[in-house]
Amino acid sequence: MPAPQDFDLINRLADIAGEVIRPYFRRKIAVVDKGASTGAMFDPVTAADKGAEQAIRALLASERPEDGILGEEFPAKIGSNGRLWVIDPVDGTRAFITGQTQWGTLIALNENGTPTLGLFDQPVTRERFIGTREGAELHSPEGITKLAVRPCECLAQAVLMTTHPWAYFDAFETAAFRALCDATMMSRFGGDCYAYGLLAMGFVDVIVEASLKPWDIQALIPIVEGAGGIITDWQGGPCAEGGRVIAAGDKRVHAEALRFLAG
Amino acid sequence: MPAPQDFDLINRLADIAGEVIRPYFRRKIAVVDKGASTGAMFDPVTAADKGAEQAIRALLASERPEDGILGEEFPAKIGSNGRLWVIDPVDGTRAFITGQTQWGTLIALNENGTPTLGLFDQPVTRERFIGTREGAELHSPEGITKLAVRPCECLAQAVLMTTHPWAYFDAFETAAFRALCDATMMSRFGGDCYAYGLLAMGFVDVIVEASLKPWDIQALIPIVEGAGGIITDWQGGPCAEGGRVIAAGDKRVHAEALRFLAG
Repeated sequence: MPAPQDFDLINRLADIAGEVIRPYFRRKIAVVDKGASTGAMFDPVTAADKGAEQAIRALLASERPEDGILGEEFPAKIGSNGRLWVIDPVDGTRAFITGQTQWGTLIALNENGTPTLGLFDQPVTRERFIGTREGAELHSPEGITKLAVRPCECLAQAVLMTTHPWAYFDAFETAAFRALCDATMMSRFGGDCYAYGLLAMGFVDVIVEASLKPWDIQALIPIVEGAGGIITDWQGGPCAEGGRVIAAGDKRVHAEALRFLAG
Repeated sequence: MPAPQDFDLINRLADIAGEVIRPYFRRKIAVVDKGASTGAMFDPVTAADKGAEQAIRALLASERPEDGILGEEFPAKIGSNGRLWVIDPVDGTRAFITGQTQWGTLIALNENGTPTLGLFDQPVTRERFIGTREGAELHSPEGITKLAVRPCECLAQAVLMTTHPWAYFDAFETAAFRALCDATMMSRFGGDCYAYGLLAMGFVDVIVEASLKPWDIQALIPIVEGAGGIITDWQGGPCAEGGRVIAAGDKRVHAEALRFLAG
């Protein structure tokens, strides 16, 4: 269970990350392709990613020296107390470098293997989603609202989102995703982490992704669950380690979608 | 050539449309499927679309009674002076009903068959793109900035956008699009009209769409051209009537892309 001071700290971590990132948005900045050295696909990283993760790590080092840190851009720091901060400073770097706002800063507190507190911050629109398994809220310039998924009876009435229809999927995943997609009412792409915010707000019914890292998903798990949704791997099991993930607002849609994905 | 009072009027039209639309955004509103009666695909419309177009038409009727009107939601009004207002009150209704901000109000002044003044307004982010062939600007809470596309040498360095990878394409279009897509550096979906704003800002290099109506594209033509870009059909000809459209920031990318699309 996260303590009150964990809520305070996670908000301060997001605040300092946002301060670092905002000045880079929609500026002409250098983009380094992390995939180039390995022959993998285009995998951009910028000074915003690195600077924000360094700022988060510095504050954690001074405030919680015994906690571990797992982040996208730097080596993991092993902790000594079962507490691990799992961070992606800019999740959705492709959205970021193209001037779109579906990216965000993801921060999770993982206690003894379970993400118990999650935060997704969009520093430009100043929307901040924060959740525990007990509940989730959106903090924005319009105020604080309780997040709640919407009911959806079946896939034929569902809105599906993912980031890209094939770039992050292997051949099996592409085929399974496409079959699922064709069974829904409509699909929207380009979601990045913002899709989970839309699901938690009740505007989207199901999200399907693959090739995720732990820092891509741990912050979003308490937000989706706190809003009343369900988030698992494609077999219906835990998804905190990343890989293939499905999130749904309604258990009926989740169960129906698994039949396309479980293979 | 649009007159100074046309600039004043087009801004007032966008203002009143935004006033009508904003209260509906992210509210639980009724969505009517215009496609249901014809067996066509899901084609949503809401009270925001209809109310905004009515407000625009009412102001035009009082201020420019002799001008024609071509809008998405109501029958065309024939004018008597070669001036035609071409409007889509909410372009990107799918984005709108899912709580995303890639939609916008599109208004073009077409003079004797040519769109000479175009406006794309995003009432929630309060970004307004406005252009003539002589130049284009973005008006936002951060101020007024001149819009300018970026150079891009070739497709292999280009960022491609479209709204959906197959929903709006027939079989030939899907195959041509996919081949083009695979030749780019990266692709982003879910763009709707906002993609043209990103192109005019210099964050995206090429946009490919099909199945467009005149009101989906006429407002965007002067914005793209005013920002220094090129916008044509898939053969390189005029695109004001809609159908298949390609927009690019750099003529080299446009020429290379046409080789995939011209069939």
